[in-house]
Amino acid sequence: MAPPPALALTLGEPAGIGPDITLAAWLTRQQRSLPAFFAIGDAAVLRRRAAALGLDVPVRACAPEEAAAVFASALPVVSAGPAVTAAPGHPDETSAPSARAAIDDAVALVKAGRATAVVTNPISKAVLYADGFAFPGHTEYLAHLAGTPAPRPVMMIWSPELAVIPATIHVPLADVPRLLTRELIIETARITAHDLRHRFGIEAPRLAICGLNPHAGEEGTLGREDEEVTRPAVEALRQEGIDARGPLPADTLFHAAARATYDAAIGAYHDQVLAPAKALAFDRAVNVTLGLPFVRTSPDHGTAFALAGTGRADPSSLIEALRLAHRLSARDAARSGR
Amino acid sequence: MAPPPALALTLGEPAGIGPDITLAAWLTRQQRSLPAFFAIGDAAVLRRRAAALGLDVPVRACAPEEAAAVFASALPVVSAGPAVTAAPGHPDETSAPSARAAIDDAVALVKAGRATAVVTNPISKAVLYADGFAFPGHTEYLAHLAGTPAPRPVMMIWSPELAVIPATIHVPLADVPRLLTRELIIETARITAHDLRHRFGIEAPRLAICGLNPHAGEEGTLGREDEEVTRPAVEALRQEGIDARGPLPADTLFHAAARATYDAAIGAYHDQVLAPAKALAFDRAVNVTLGLPFVRTSPDHGTAFALAGTGRADPSSLIEALRLAHRLSARDAARSGR
Repeated sequence: MAPPPALALTLGEPAGIGPDITLAAWLTRQQRSLPAFFAIGDAAVLRRRAAALGLDVPVRACAPEEAAAVFASALPVVSAGPAVTAAPGHPDETSAPSARAAIDDAVALVKAGRATAVVTNPISKAVLYADGFAFPGHTEYLAHLAGTPAPRPVMMIWSPELAVIPATIHVPLADVPRLLTRELIIETARITAHDLRHRFGIEAPRLAICGLNPHAGEEGTLGREDEEVTRPAVEALRQEGIDARGPLPADTLFHAAARATYDAAIGAYHDQVLAPAKALAFDRAVNVTLGLPFVRTSPDHGTAFALAGTGRADPSSLIEALRLAHRLSARDAARSGR
Repeated sequence: MAPPPALALTLGEPAGIGPDITLAAWLTRQQRSLPAFFAIGDAAVLRRRAAALGLDVPVRACAPEEAAAVFASALPVVSAGPAVTAAPGHPDETSAPSARAAIDDAVALVKAGRATAVVTNPISKAVLYADGFAFPGHTEYLAHLAGTPAPRPVMMIWSPELAVIPATIHVPLADVPRLLTRELIIETARITAHDLRHRFGIEAPRLAICGLNPHAGEEGTLGREDEEVTRPAVEALRQEGIDARGPLPADTLFHAAARATYDAAIGAYHDQVLAPAKALAFDRAVNVTLGLPFVRTSPDHGTAFALAGTGRADPSSLIEALRLAHRLSARDAARSGR
C-alpha cells in the first residue's frame, strides 16, 4: 500500500526565515509528533541554510509520493523554480520566481491529490511586486490558482484560544465604515460557518459578530452602522439558520468566559480582532484561508529578513500551521473517502 | 496619633451592583489585605442589600476620620444624599441624587485631606441624564469638581498585565480619523507620562503609541494619518524628553514580549486597546483617571442592574481598584510629606 500523501510546504521568500523555520520545524518532528511534510523550492537553499545555522538536517530531493517515507530520516524537498542565489536577508532576482513556483506547484499537487494541504512560508510582497506580481497578496493568488471562477477567500487567524476573522482587512481605518456592508458581513459569515462545519467539524458553528463602534454603538448613540448594517446582517444570517449573534461590543468579547460562548469572532476591521487574538496567542496563531477548495494554512508572521540565517527565528507558528493543516485535511480526506 | 485617612468609595447607582460588590469587597479585607475604605451614600441601602444577600456585614455610620479604625470590624459608611427607596435592579427618583451626592462629597473629602483617594462604584448615565445631569460621564464630572479651570482627565485601563489609554474614546469609529489630531496625541501622552512618573513611580515612562491604520499604515500605503499625524506627534514628544515610540502596529503590541518594552500603550481609539486589555485581564482591569489633582480609580464595568441583589456580582475589579488607589495615593502622600 502506498504511503499517504504528505503536506506541501512552500519555501516562501528564500532570503527570509522560511528556510530557517522549515529546518527547525523538521527537527521537532518526533517531539511534537509532526505530520509528514515536504518542502517545495530549491533544496540547495535548505542545505546552505542548515550549514549556516550548524543544524544537522539531511535534505533529500524526492517526489511528493516519497515524502511520507523519507520524512522520518530526512527533510524531503520537491524541487520547484530556479536555482536560488539570494543570501539570507538579501532577496535577489531569483527570489520571486522561486517563491511563486513553489506556490504554483503546491496548488497543482494538492489539486491532483498528490499533497494533502498547502502550508505556505512567508513571501515578500515588495519583492514579488517588483517582479510583476499582480495580486494583492498570497491569499488572492492562491484563490486565483484554485479554479475558475476564483473562490472568495476569507482570512481566519486561529489559535487554540481564539479564532477571529476581520471582515475588512488591509485598508485604511477611514475606509472601514464605507466598506463594511451587509453583504460583506453575510458573505464572510457564510464562508466561515461552512468551513467551520465541514473542515473543523463543528456541527453548528456559533459566530460572534463584533459591532463597528465602541460598545457596538450603544443602540445607535455612538454611530448608526451597528443598527443599520451589522444588526440586519446578523438577522439575515439567523434567518438562513446560521447561529450568528451581534452586533457585540468588541472590548468585552475576548476573555475566557466570553470566548466560551462562540467558535469564531468576526470583526469589523483588522486591529479590532487581531490585537486581542495575538495578545492571547502570539506565537501560536495560524493564518487559515477559508473558502478555498483545499486546506491552506500559514504561519502568522512575515519574512523577517533581519532574522534569516541568525538562528533566532521561532518556528512555533509554522509548527502550529502544519499541525492544523494536517488536522483539517485529515477530516477532508475522511469525508471524501480518500 | 490620629489614624491615617481612608479611601472614599462612592456607592454609585444604588439600584446597581455597587452595594453588592462593596459588601463583597469588605468581606475579603483580611484575606486580600485590603486598604481601609469607607462607603459614601445611604447606609440603609447597604444594610438592606446585606440582608437580601444573606451576608453578615455590620454596617456602621461614622465620620471619615473614624473609618480606618472601624474598618476591621464593620463596613464604615459616611452618609451622603437622600434616603434611597430604589430596589435592586430598579432605579427610582432617589437614584441620581444619591449617586451624585456621593461623588460630590468624595471629592470634597479628598480635597480637604479627609480621604486619601476617590474610588467610584458604577453610575447609570441614563438615570443621571433623566435627572438633568449635564456632563458626558463620571470622569468629566470629577474633573469639573476638581477645580477651575477643570483639568483634562485621561482614562487609563490598568491591570498588572497591561496599561492602555485610548486617545479617542466614546465616539463613532467613522469620526476617529478626524478627531485623532497631533495635539490630542501629544496632550494625552504628556498627561500619561506625568502621572506614570509621579503617581506610579516610573522614573522614565515608556509610551507605545499605536498607529491608526492596520500595520500602522505600512509607510502610508494603508492610510496617511500615521505618517502625517501620529509620527509627528511622537517626534514632538521625544523632543520634549518623553520616551514615546510609534506609530506601532497594534496587532503585534500586546503579547508578553512586546508588553515588556513599554509601560503604557496609547491607542488611537476604544476597541484597539480595550479589546486586548480586557482579553488579558477582564476581571482585574481597573479604570484610572489620570490628570486629576487627586487619585481616582473605578471598577471597569457598569451598574449591571440584572445582577444587583442576586449574589452573582463579581467584586474582583472593585478590589483591584481599591488596591491600586491605595498604592497610588500612598505614593502621593509620601511625596507631599503628608
